[in-house]
Amino acid sequence: MTPNIEILSVGNELLIGKTLNTNAQWLAKRLTVLGLNVRRITVAGDDVEEIGTVVKEAINRKPAYLITTGGLGPTFDDKTLEGIRKALGTEIALNKKALEMIEIKYRNYAKERGLEKIELTPARVKMAKLPKNAEPLPNPVGTAPGMIIEHDGVRVVALPGVPPEMKAIFEESLEPMLKTLAGDVTFFETSLGVSGIMESELAPIIDKVMHDNPYVYIKSHPRGAEKTPHIELHISTTAKNSATARNHVTRALIQITETIQAKGGKTKPFKTKD
Amino acid sequence: MTPNIEILSVGNELLIGKTLNTNAQWLAKRLTVLGLNVRRITVAGDDVEEIGTVVKEAINRKPAYLITTGGLGPTFDDKTLEGIRKALGTEIALNKKALEMIEIKYRNYAKERGLEKIELTPARVKMAKLPKNAEPLPNPVGTAPGMIIEHDGVRVVALPGVPPEMKAIFEESLEPMLKTLAGDVTFFETSLGVSGIMESELAPIIDKVMHDNPYVYIKSHPRGAEKTPHIELHISTTAKNSATARNHVTRALIQITETIQAKGGKTKPFKTKD
Repeated sequence: MTPNIEILSVGNELLIGKTLNTNAQWLAKRLTVLGLNVRRITVAGDDVEEIGTVVKEAINRKPAYLITTGGLGPTFDDKTLEGIRKALGTEIALNKKALEMIEIKYRNYAKERGLEKIELTPARVKMAKLPKNAEPLPNPVGTAPGMIIEHDGVRVVALPGVPPEMKAIFEESLEPMLKTLAGDVTFFETSLGVSGIMESELAPIIDKVMHDNPYVYIKSHPRGAEKTPHIELHISTTAKNSATARNHVTRALIQITETIQAKGGKTKPFKTKD
Repeated sequence: MTPNIEILSVGNELLIGKTLNTNAQWLAKRLTVLGLNVRRITVAGDDVEEIGTVVKEAINRKPAYLITTGGLGPTFDDKTLEGIRKALGTEIALNKKALEMIEIKYRNYAKERGLEKIELTPARVKMAKLPKNAEPLPNPVGTAPGMIIEHDGVRVVALPGVPPEMKAIFEESLEPMLKTLAGDVTFFETSLGVSGIMESELAPIIDKVMHDNPYVYIKSHPRGAEKTPHIELHISTTAKNSATARNHVTRALIQITETIQAKGGKTKPFKTKD
């Protein structure tokens, strides 16, 4: 069984449509490529109750990891840790390791600006206040550290919402743990461009090929206008090693290509912009 | 109280990071501008059980509307209606109005291609199978109709995942209902660019201004590199009419600008790319 992961994106800017949730997509892609299964993505606002409820619900579904993004900064609306604390029924406490990380940051910022020192105001110290027993995760490019805490067998990870910070902490601290979790599993995918056949005609063909290739997932995505039907068939699988994954996908690809051509459809490699 | 809306985006392509969830952002923005409150966005895979669970959970939170996107097409992996049916404890039945809509579509497609007729295969008829008592919503640009059904005081709406189809059904059928729901409420927002001051210094200023302007929500978004701190302050509100909304935001904007400048920070209008 592929381990399940859940993502929780925190931020009112996502709920009012101001910001596109590129963080969730970036994480989902990275987790999938590692061979992990992203089961659910939730977006919640900057509200302690709501964050707490979502975290609690996610933990009850027992994913291997729940990864949150956003809400770790110094401002009043950074409420993710308070929400996690609430869900875990624990307390927030000043974390010594996190405080050290932050002290070093502000010492360096002061040096860069030629100041003698930058005061550790309450807003700055706030970033070192973590749920009890959490481990801070160093932030290589920003100020607020991430954190990880285990609860009921679920590892809850909090990452900042600023994309370069989120990515840097993921790559430095989280990815090594996730690789261990995933083991040798890998993900493989390819896309086929199909034209001259309607999506509704493809439906029974996809059914048959997926039935014959139980490890492979095939999904049709209509592209272009209705009158010039052009469909992307996305074929993907997760397997114990990359050769097997590639084999499974290739076998399904050949079968579906032949069937489509026999029905008068045209196929060609599908180019995706990344 | 502003009515709550929830969004459920269905599709494995979102969970593997293949597709960016632009549908949720588009909907969230349109709903917010109408004066409605998007409370939660959930992304679930093409799995009947999972969709059913999410729909059930959302209905229990009693939003005015739950809007789903994706999973309405003719292929086997289009499972949204089956998930909704499950959550509602009802049955799927051939909907006469929906079937008529689909018959007309295929009659037109046949005409355009110079064919005598296009057979209504089971995959095509599938798009007319809706939960019992659902109302189909005509699809002005694609084939699969959307649908709306009321359950426990919650209106559950299913829209297709193909963006132009989703948008067309929203604008033609859904927006008029949502306008009635929102009444006279409007949303107003503006952004202020701030430099020469760190986010952690802004934190107590934002606190104070939000305390003095209880109707207004202010959120700081760090932009640019850590060494040249540049922050976007986003100020927004929802009010009974646009003059009041604009007044509330302007008052907060003036207060925060003056305080930042008094602390040595610089402010300028913030330009967002849309």
